[in-house]
Amino acid sequence: MKKISYPRGVLAPAVTPFHSDLSIDMERFGAHCHWLLQQGVKGLAIFGTTSEATSLSCEERMHGLDGLLARGVPAACLLPGTGCSALTDTVTLTRHAVQRNCGGVLLLPPFYYKGVSENGVFSGIAELIERVADTNLRLFLYHIPALTGVPFTVPLVERLIKAYPSIILGLKDSSGDWNNTKSYLDAFPGFAVYSGNESYMLETLRLGGAGSISATANVNAAGMRRLLDAWQTPEADQIQQEVTLVRKTIQPYSLMAATKAILAHYKNDPEWNRLRPPLEPLTVEASRALCAALDNIGFSLK
Amino acid sequence: MKKISYPRGVLAPAVTPFHSDLSIDMERFGAHCHWLLQQGVKGLAIFGTTSEATSLSCEERMHGLDGLLARGVPAACLLPGTGCSALTDTVTLTRHAVQRNCGGVLLLPPFYYKGVSENGVFSGIAELIERVADTNLRLFLYHIPALTGVPFTVPLVERLIKAYPSIILGLKDSSGDWNNTKSYLDAFPGFAVYSGNESYMLETLRLGGAGSISATANVNAAGMRRLLDAWQTPEADQIQQEVTLVRKTIQPYSLMAATKAILAHYKNDPEWNRLRPPLEPLTVEASRALCAALDNIGFSLK
Repeated sequence: MKKISYPRGVLAPAVTPFHSDLSIDMERFGAHCHWLLQQGVKGLAIFGTTSEATSLSCEERMHGLDGLLARGVPAACLLPGTGCSALTDTVTLTRHAVQRNCGGVLLLPPFYYKGVSENGVFSGIAELIERVADTNLRLFLYHIPALTGVPFTVPLVERLIKAYPSIILGLKDSSGDWNNTKSYLDAFPGFAVYSGNESYMLETLRLGGAGSISATANVNAAGMRRLLDAWQTPEADQIQQEVTLVRKTIQPYSLMAATKAILAHYKNDPEWNRLRPPLEPLTVEASRALCAALDNIGFSLK
Repeated sequence: MKKISYPRGVLAPAVTPFHSDLSIDMERFGAHCHWLLQQGVKGLAIFGTTSEATSLSCEERMHGLDGLLARGVPAACLLPGTGCSALTDTVTLTRHAVQRNCGGVLLLPPFYYKGVSENGVFSGIAELIERVADTNLRLFLYHIPALTGVPFTVPLVERLIKAYPSIILGLKDSSGDWNNTKSYLDAFPGFAVYSGNESYMLETLRLGGAGSISATANVNAAGMRRLLDAWQTPEADQIQQEVTLVRKTIQPYSLMAATKAILAHYKNDPEWNRLRPPLEPLTVEASRALCAALDNIGFSLK
């Protein structure tokens, strides 16, 4: 049996830069991904919530992934988001990512209908796995109930792991609720749980989790990597406090807009400050207040 | 100036039948649309919530629309749903519907992100209108906040109508809240307001609204048409009560699953009883209970 490898530790859900016509700025996207890897992230969870993935068509997402590969970003470090509201789109994107040898895919549940049954969500994932029909498929579940309204509960995750133990390998918990993250860690030893909020990264690692996939890794990858490298040392709690302070300074703002505003400001590159509707950039005032608060705690992009 | 015409009165958000491989069953879809027109609907709001549109890819939706036209369904009576979470997909579908001379399009707001600003939603629609760039574009807003989390509030609708008076022509209100429907009718005389629940159809018509676009029109088109024809007669309130009784009998169930279960049962055609995950058909027991309750009030498909 072949060894399963996928990115662990610190992953960045890389933000997607846009040209003025709102098409993906592939040069800036490629450069940002390379920079994040240099800053120490172990993987790139491209096309997640922070990346505005659901504001992109399937074609744009596949073209974007191929563009990164063409620019030398290693496929093995990529964990693209592939979960769409339509099963057929999810199949298209997942198949494409597997064919490109990505480290895995991060799977939103179908997110239009609310109050759907766990059996319905399970059936969709079973259908996806049957249609992709590739032993290299590695699925990481993406729990973000505030946006999807469709939770990956512990019983649902348990059923998925039991049915597909070599495919359902982990979960990103963006509930923001440590007790929820802990419930997966307690229930599924060895399952790759990533905290969606790096404030809980150290606790996640200490309970056997895989690390963190967090929006703010777009701007504090180096800090999170320092924590990853030191998590078993006496300095770990101090470094976690520093990482948490950066997170708490950014968190009052929309994370999609805030990470782009921070990149625009600290890289002196206003091109970063574009989002697709319905999202909007921070106002000039909000951006100034955020960056002043970050300056105040000694933040820099390094 | 050319006269603007679009379907008013009773519109059915036609359910989408699937083959066993979950692809669209075009023969059954075409036949269902023709049958609905014979039953008296004035238009077909294909690819709405009841149609499981968000469970279909853009390609499937465009192919489905073209398939109906090829089967003789008149373009002018079609009001396809075209709103996706990605602006680029919304543009693709809207442009396609306009090129095919559809009566209009029914527009969901982008539905992934929550808590987005009204300005962000406005900007997305402005961008859509600029990109489609066709004076034949007729947009009907689709307010269904329980599923989107993104409301079309009265101030947002007002801003859209003021900016694009010849394009933003109406709204389907699926809030289920008559007071909300009334707020559009009071604020925008002449605006084509459709109740998403036919229990309020008579009240909507009496306040100058356009009619109703309701899931249950898939199975009670004839009843709703009778109400439309008689709404200014002394019998109107009695007919509304009969229409409401059918609605109330079906409403406790998932409308997507219930309409398909009713078609399967009363047309003796079990092929209807398929939904795409994450949705599921009614259980045999639920389907029996629903149809028994409908039998009990003298319901038939006619």
